[in-house]
Amino acid sequence: MLMLNITGTYTDKYELVMGQAFFMTGRMDQHAVFDYFYRKAPFNGGYAVFAGLLDLLKILEGFHFEKDDLEYLKAQGFHDDYLNYLKKFRFTGNIYASKEGEIVFPACPILRVEGALIETQLIETVLLNIINFQSLIATKASRMRLVAKDHVLIDFGLRRAQGMGGYHASHAAVIGGFDATSNTRTAKDYDLQASGTMAHSFVQCYESELEAFRTFASTRPDDCVLIVDTYDTLRSGVPNAIKVAKELEKKGRRLKGIRLDSGDLAYLAKQSRAMLDKAGLPYVKIAASNQLDEYLIRSLLEQKAPIDVFGVGTNLVTGRPDAALDGVYKLAQADGRSVIKISENVTKITLPDKKQVWRTFDKQGLFLGADVVGLEREKKISVMHHPFVPHQSFAIKGYDTEPILDLVMDKGKIVYDPKKLSETARYCQDRLEMLPAEYKRFENPHVYKVGISSRLKAMRDRLIEHYRK
Amino acid sequence: MLMLNITGTYTDKYELVMGQAFFMTGRMDQHAVFDYFYRKAPFNGGYAVFAGLLDLLKILEGFHFEKDDLEYLKAQGFHDDYLNYLKKFRFTGNIYASKEGEIVFPACPILRVEGALIETQLIETVLLNIINFQSLIATKASRMRLVAKDHVLIDFGLRRAQGMGGYHASHAAVIGGFDATSNTRTAKDYDLQASGTMAHSFVQCYESELEAFRTFASTRPDDCVLIVDTYDTLRSGVPNAIKVAKELEKKGRRLKGIRLDSGDLAYLAKQSRAMLDKAGLPYVKIAASNQLDEYLIRSLLEQKAPIDVFGVGTNLVTGRPDAALDGVYKLAQADGRSVIKISENVTKITLPDKKQVWRTFDKQGLFLGADVVGLEREKKISVMHHPFVPHQSFAIKGYDTEPILDLVMDKGKIVYDPKKLSETARYCQDRLEMLPAEYKRFENPHVYKVGISSRLKAMRDRLIEHYRK
Repeated sequence: MLMLNITGTYTDKYELVMGQAFFMTGRMDQHAVFDYFYRKAPFNGGYAVFAGLLDLLKILEGFHFEKDDLEYLKAQGFHDDYLNYLKKFRFTGNIYASKEGEIVFPACPILRVEGALIETQLIETVLLNIINFQSLIATKASRMRLVAKDHVLIDFGLRRAQGMGGYHASHAAVIGGFDATSNTRTAKDYDLQASGTMAHSFVQCYESELEAFRTFASTRPDDCVLIVDTYDTLRSGVPNAIKVAKELEKKGRRLKGIRLDSGDLAYLAKQSRAMLDKAGLPYVKIAASNQLDEYLIRSLLEQKAPIDVFGVGTNLVTGRPDAALDGVYKLAQADGRSVIKISENVTKITLPDKKQVWRTFDKQGLFLGADVVGLEREKKISVMHHPFVPHQSFAIKGYDTEPILDLVMDKGKIVYDPKKLSETARYCQDRLEMLPAEYKRFENPHVYKVGISSRLKAMRDRLIEHYRK
Repeated sequence: MLMLNITGTYTDKYELVMGQAFFMTGRMDQHAVFDYFYRKAPFNGGYAVFAGLLDLLKILEGFHFEKDDLEYLKAQGFHDDYLNYLKKFRFTGNIYASKEGEIVFPACPILRVEGALIETQLIETVLLNIINFQSLIATKASRMRLVAKDHVLIDFGLRRAQGMGGYHASHAAVIGGFDATSNTRTAKDYDLQASGTMAHSFVQCYESELEAFRTFASTRPDDCVLIVDTYDTLRSGVPNAIKVAKELEKKGRRLKGIRLDSGDLAYLAKQSRAMLDKAGLPYVKIAASNQLDEYLIRSLLEQKAPIDVFGVGTNLVTGRPDAALDGVYKLAQADGRSVIKISENVTKITLPDKKQVWRTFDKQGLFLGADVVGLEREKKISVMHHPFVPHQSFAIKGYDTEPILDLVMDKGKIVYDPKKLSETARYCQDRLEMLPAEYKRFENPHVYKVGISSRLKAMRDRLIEHYRK
C-alpha cells in the first residue's frame, strides 16, 4: 500500500537550507510577511478561482517532521541543533486569506502569511503546491460551468490525472462548479456526489451487447446508464438500450440514461434522442464524454446537441493546456522592514509591506472591474494608481468597497468557520455572477484592473530608488 | 496532517459498479486479459518512456479495502454480499510488462494483465493513474536529457506540480534522465539526490545582498550557490558573489556556483561567466532556471550559453503542454473468448487475445523502426502487416527480435528483481541510444511502425466481421 503523509520533508530542499541559515544566525524569529499571488490568469482567461484554502490550513495545522524525516535530514548533513528545532517545529503564524471560492485577479495578494521568518519560509512549498493546483482546476471547472449552464457536469478524470494529484483535482472541480465525480476516494473524503456506471469492457465481457445491457440493468435497475458505442452506436447500442428500457418499464422501472463516448457527439446525440423519443422514452437522459473541454461543450450546446450530462476527464483534472497556475510567494516585510524584489521586467517588481485588497462594486452591486491594493493600515483609499504606468489614476470615492483578506489562521490555528463544500461552490457561482461577462469571455477577455494606493505606490517607488542606487 | 493511502476506493466508481454486476451474476471469476497501451506519443514526439511500474506493482500487492472504504460503499448502496467479498479483496492475477525505463511506441501493448475478471477490472483506474502520469513525465525528462547532453538537470517543480502528483513526478524525472530534485520527500523515499540552495526571499531578509551572501556562505561553506538576480544581476549580484567567493578562498573554500533565475539567461550567463573568469573563479558553476523546457535548453546551448546546471520546474513536472498521456486499458480476452472494441475510427479498433510484442533490431543492434505484435503463443513471426492499411507488409525474417513483455507479477506477487532506480535510469538512456535519431527529433519525428502478425490480423479481421454483422 502506498501512503503519502504530508510532513516537513514535503518541500523544496532550499527551504530547509535557508531555514538552517536563519536558525544558525539568530534570525529565525524575526517577523516576516509573505504574499501569495499569481501573475497571469490561466487559460487566457480573465480571472482565477481561489481554491485549496481549507486543505492547506489543515495541512499547516499538523505540519511537523516525523522521526524518519529527521533521520533523513541528518544523513543529508543538516546540523543537530537545527534538527532539534525541527523536531518541535509547528507553524504558529497568522494567515489572512480571500474566501475559498473567491474570484481573484492577477497581481493581487490572495493570501498573506505572517509569523517567524523560519516558519513562514518552511511552509512556502506546500502552500504553493496545494493552492496553485486547486485554484487552477477550480478555474478550469468554472469555465465549463459557465458554458454548460444548468447541464450536469461530472468529473471522469482520475485515470488521466497527474498521479495522486487527481485526489485534490476532483475536490477543486466541485468548487469551480462540477456536480459530481467518478473519483470514489475523493467523493468519500469530501462528501461529494460519486457517479459511475459502465465501461466498454463490461459490454465486451458478454456474448452480446444486449445480454450485457440486460445483466447490468438487472443489477442496477434504478441507476442504469448504458454505454452504447462499443460496437455501433445507432445500429446496435441505442436499439439495444431501447429494448432494455422497455423491459425495465414492464417491471415499473426506468432506464436512467445512455452514454456516448466516441464519434460525432452532436450528430449521435441528436439521432439517439430522436430514436429514444420515438420509442416513447423521453425521460432517458443522454450523457456524453470523450476529450471534452469548455470549447467543445460550448460547441455542442450551440449545435443544440440534446446532451444532458457531460463527463469531463483529462482536460479538467490536468488543467490542460496550461497545467499550472503561476502563483508565487513573495516576501513583503522582514523584521519590520518593507522589502521588494526588483526585476528588469517592471511587472515582476513586488509590492512591499503588509497589504489589504479591496474589491470595488458598481451601483448594481457588480464587480467594478478593479481591485485596489493598499497598506493594511490604510482605512480610506480614494484614488488608485496604475501599478506601472505613471500618471494613470482612478478615483474610487463613492463606490462600495470590501476588504477581501480575512484572518483565517491565528497562531497556527484555524479561526474561521469553514463553509460546507456545497456552500463554497455556491459562493464561487455567486461571485462569478457578480463578475461582468466581458471578464469571463474566453476570447480576449477584458483585463480586470489592479490599482495601488497612493501610500503603497510612494513606498514602493522609494524602495525601487533605494535598491537601484 | 494530510495522509493519502491508496486503497480500494482510489478508483472510478464505475469499476466498483461493474465489479458488483460481475459478482452478482456469477461472472467474477471468469478469466480476463487486459492490455495497457497508449495511442499518441506525447509532445508531438516519436516515443514514450515507460515508468511507474514498480510503484504500481507495490500498490497492487497491497491493494485492499479499509473499513472506512467499506462503510462508505455501504452508504452508497452497494450490496452486503459484495462488500463481504471486497473486505477480502486482493489482486491475485498475473502481469506481464515491459521493463521500467523501456522506450515504447503507440498502439503496442506495454503491459498485460491476466486474472479473474473482477480483479482485473477493479485495478484499472489505479493502474492508469500511476502509469500514464509517470510515463508522461519520464518522457518529458528524456527530451530534456537529450538536448542537455552531459549538463546537470535538476527538478525544481514541486511548487507548481499538480498537488500530490509532484511526489511521483520527481521520481519519473530521474528515470527519464534527471540528476537530482529539490523535492525532499521524494528524494528521501526513493534515495534520489536532493538539491537546494537559496531563494530571493533569503536575500531580501538582509539589509544588503552582500550581507545575505556572506551569511549564507558562512552556514554552508562547501555547498554554496548564490542567487544573483534579486536586485541587479550584473551590477550587484555577480560582483557580490565574486566578493564572497574571494573571501571563501581565503578560508580555503570554494564557492560552488551562482544561479540566474530571470532575464535573458544566455546573455546573463555569458556576462557572468566572463566576470567570474576574469576574477579568477573559473571553477564557479552557473545554474539557470526560469520556465525552462527542452526547447529553451536546446536554444541556450545552441547559443553557447555557459550554463552548467539547468533547474527545470513547471514544464517538467506537469508535462506541459500535453499534461497527460492517453494510455488506455482494453479488454482483449474474456472467459477464453478473444474480444475487440469496434470504432468508426479504424485506428481505435483494439487488438484481441493474449499478445506479445517483439522489438526488432538492425545489424548494428539499433532498433529497426518497427515493433511486431503477435499472439503470445506464436513462436516465429516472419511477416508483419500494417495494422490498418491492407496489403502492406514487411518481412522481418533474419532480423534479431526480442520479446518485451515479461512476467513481473505472478498471482499478485512481484516476481522480478527490481533494478535500483539509477539502473532503471541507465537502462532508459541505453535504450534511447539504440533508438535512431530520426525517431527522437522534436520536429516531425519519423513514425515508429507497429506491425501485427498474420495470425493476429486474421483473428482481428474475423472479429470485426462478426461484430459488424
